[in-house]
Amino acid sequence: MNNTDATSIALPVGFRAAGVSCGLKSDPSKPDLALFVADRPSAAAGVFTTNLVCGAPVKVSRSRLPRATARAVIVNSGNANACTGARGDEDARWMTAEVAKQLDCSPEDVLVCSTGVIGRFLPREKLAKGIPAATSHLAPSAENFRDAATAMMTTDTFAKLATRSRRVGAGDLRVSGVAKGAAMIAPNMATMLAVLMTDAPLDPRQADSLLRHAVARSFNCISVDGHMSTSDTVLLLASGARQVRLGDGELAMIQEIVDEVAVELAQAIIRDAEGADHFITLDVRGTKTRDDAIRIARAITDSPLVKTAIAGGDPNWGRIVSAAGYAGVPFREEDLSLKLNGVLLYKAGAPTDFDAKSLSQGLRANRDVLIELDFALGDEAVRFWTSDLTAEYVRLNADYTT
Amino acid sequence: MNNTDATSIALPVGFRAAGVSCGLKSDPSKPDLALFVADRPSAAAGVFTTNLVCGAPVKVSRSRLPRATARAVIVNSGNANACTGARGDEDARWMTAEVAKQLDCSPEDVLVCSTGVIGRFLPREKLAKGIPAATSHLAPSAENFRDAATAMMTTDTFAKLATRSRRVGAGDLRVSGVAKGAAMIAPNMATMLAVLMTDAPLDPRQADSLLRHAVARSFNCISVDGHMSTSDTVLLLASGARQVRLGDGELAMIQEIVDEVAVELAQAIIRDAEGADHFITLDVRGTKTRDDAIRIARAITDSPLVKTAIAGGDPNWGRIVSAAGYAGVPFREEDLSLKLNGVLLYKAGAPTDFDAKSLSQGLRANRDVLIELDFALGDEAVRFWTSDLTAEYVRLNADYTT
Repeated sequence: MNNTDATSIALPVGFRAAGVSCGLKSDPSKPDLALFVADRPSAAAGVFTTNLVCGAPVKVSRSRLPRATARAVIVNSGNANACTGARGDEDARWMTAEVAKQLDCSPEDVLVCSTGVIGRFLPREKLAKGIPAATSHLAPSAENFRDAATAMMTTDTFAKLATRSRRVGAGDLRVSGVAKGAAMIAPNMATMLAVLMTDAPLDPRQADSLLRHAVARSFNCISVDGHMSTSDTVLLLASGARQVRLGDGELAMIQEIVDEVAVELAQAIIRDAEGADHFITLDVRGTKTRDDAIRIARAITDSPLVKTAIAGGDPNWGRIVSAAGYAGVPFREEDLSLKLNGVLLYKAGAPTDFDAKSLSQGLRANRDVLIELDFALGDEAVRFWTSDLTAEYVRLNADYTT
Repeated sequence: MNNTDATSIALPVGFRAAGVSCGLKSDPSKPDLALFVADRPSAAAGVFTTNLVCGAPVKVSRSRLPRATARAVIVNSGNANACTGARGDEDARWMTAEVAKQLDCSPEDVLVCSTGVIGRFLPREKLAKGIPAATSHLAPSAENFRDAATAMMTTDTFAKLATRSRRVGAGDLRVSGVAKGAAMIAPNMATMLAVLMTDAPLDPRQADSLLRHAVARSFNCISVDGHMSTSDTVLLLASGARQVRLGDGELAMIQEIVDEVAVELAQAIIRDAEGADHFITLDVRGTKTRDDAIRIARAITDSPLVKTAIAGGDPNWGRIVSAAGYAGVPFREEDLSLKLNGVLLYKAGAPTDFDAKSLSQGLRANRDVLIELDFALGDEAVRFWTSDLTAEYVRLNADYTT
């Protein structure tokens, strides 16, 4: 259930995909244009970056959602079309119109995402050739689904796909998704994008609600460097190709698999975080509100000191506890206990005796790390995922010249 | 006026200092105990970390300030006495009582700071020898002042001292200060400390007000890694040894030199930020409120992506603009222009044509970097200082085992 291999990857019924190359990247042979098409008008919803400085595609797609008649998502890598002013807005709208021409639909029914360099204008002449090429390659195959995921990659080292299905009534409902992002760590790249698709017959309001629930528990619970992108976008399209009756029970089941697909893609982004040696799961439990838990989790996962300690295999719990202390959530030191890889290091505000050498050896030997904070304040909790901070991260982000 | 060399360093009248070694560090020959003593009861004020997880010395000193009868500040390095529970609180109070015995004053008139490893109990037996040794070495000399500054160092590579004087009435008023901190980047160390002293005849309320003004423009305007310490403390003691009449003009003059000393010490911390190759000055201007400017400055100086770009000599203005965009301050892209080392890169929301190669060469060739953000929103401004983020920073913070 938790892993999907190439053979199990499939698009939901009613969707086709393509991934092609049109020369937007410095290596022009690399795929850079992905297209996802719903055969019929579909419900669509989106969640976007809250950065005030946002890419033109974010403005265009956001203004069109949620809607009942979406037909396609066009995604290019190699150029973020962000910080490009009025010309960038026109370019983003132009991209959707070019796709609409091919599909014979309204430009308003096409959504757009761009990822790559900030502050450069899109080369329309390349896209004007790439978009018809992408539409001519459309197919519902697993291979095309993977091609599209690959065309979204910037500094990602692997394509990120996930799929789940559940029996509902007489048939299976499927949710499938792709994502790109090695977090915000790549030179000049600043985006995580995800496109989720389902054959369930959702209306736009249901799609919006399912997507927000899933994003709050997946893409909003990961952090590599705390730098919020100008282009972050997660979209959900529901083709309704499987016409089943959706009661509360069925909706809950769909929510479950949308959540699972979103979590798997979010985790894949952290597993691909450039330069990272460790995959860190952080549980914050026992707070009064979920927001409190999130603030504490964010302070810890944003701290370079916590992340360098894990990189070095150092069970330096003082850094974790002190990050919790400046998160802005009121607590007393006695309210807090901390475990690292199952070992209790800090109990109700006081240090414990623990075998630092063996704990450090475990940190060095294993990629996966578990940090658990238990507060005595309430019953709320959150789970976050993050990477460590290595010298390789800095090299990747510094040794680059525009 | 902006630089002080060894010969110009002096304590204000009415103060003595000492720096000795009592074996708290892994290299027991290194000085680790600093003592500052006012000959007579002095006005004192303090500004402390707002971290809820704070060191025992912070709790003890904070509870005693502001006051009119302070006599001494005892500072140890090598052990932060933080996250040490009730026993840590008793140890901090015991330190002040040991100093008070030597000076024949009330323990309440002694302030205490500790910096170093978190979560270990203080070795009282070592301090019980070190404190009388420090008192026996007290002297008003520049050499002793420097010894005390040196004894506060943890991973600092140089002692940080600053001094200013101004003619007021018949004589000179002096403000001198010491600080420690290579920001929060050192393994298990998590502190910036500063002690400012003046011979001006301030009352506690005046000392408090002068200190808060200075801290807001100096130590609160620096950032290395955004991880707030458990032990940050800045103290101001005013001996009143120079008995001059202080009107508003004199107070403004003293404020000016307190500010200058604080800024010089804060800048010294950034210049000593471990692993750093660049010293970055950031001006945020034209915001509606000073708080808005601070929020934007903090988002930029906390961003690992901005800091790695500078480390790599990359004029990657998209990272700077996008960090401003998530600071939580409302603005439109058209409201913002950005200069890097005097070159306009982003003008009223659109990219400019600039010579990226020559700008990059300048970034690589020079340690000092100037980033200027101009908003069209109001008349407020703030200046921040920060360091870049290098692979060396990560090595220093990762390649360490408890």
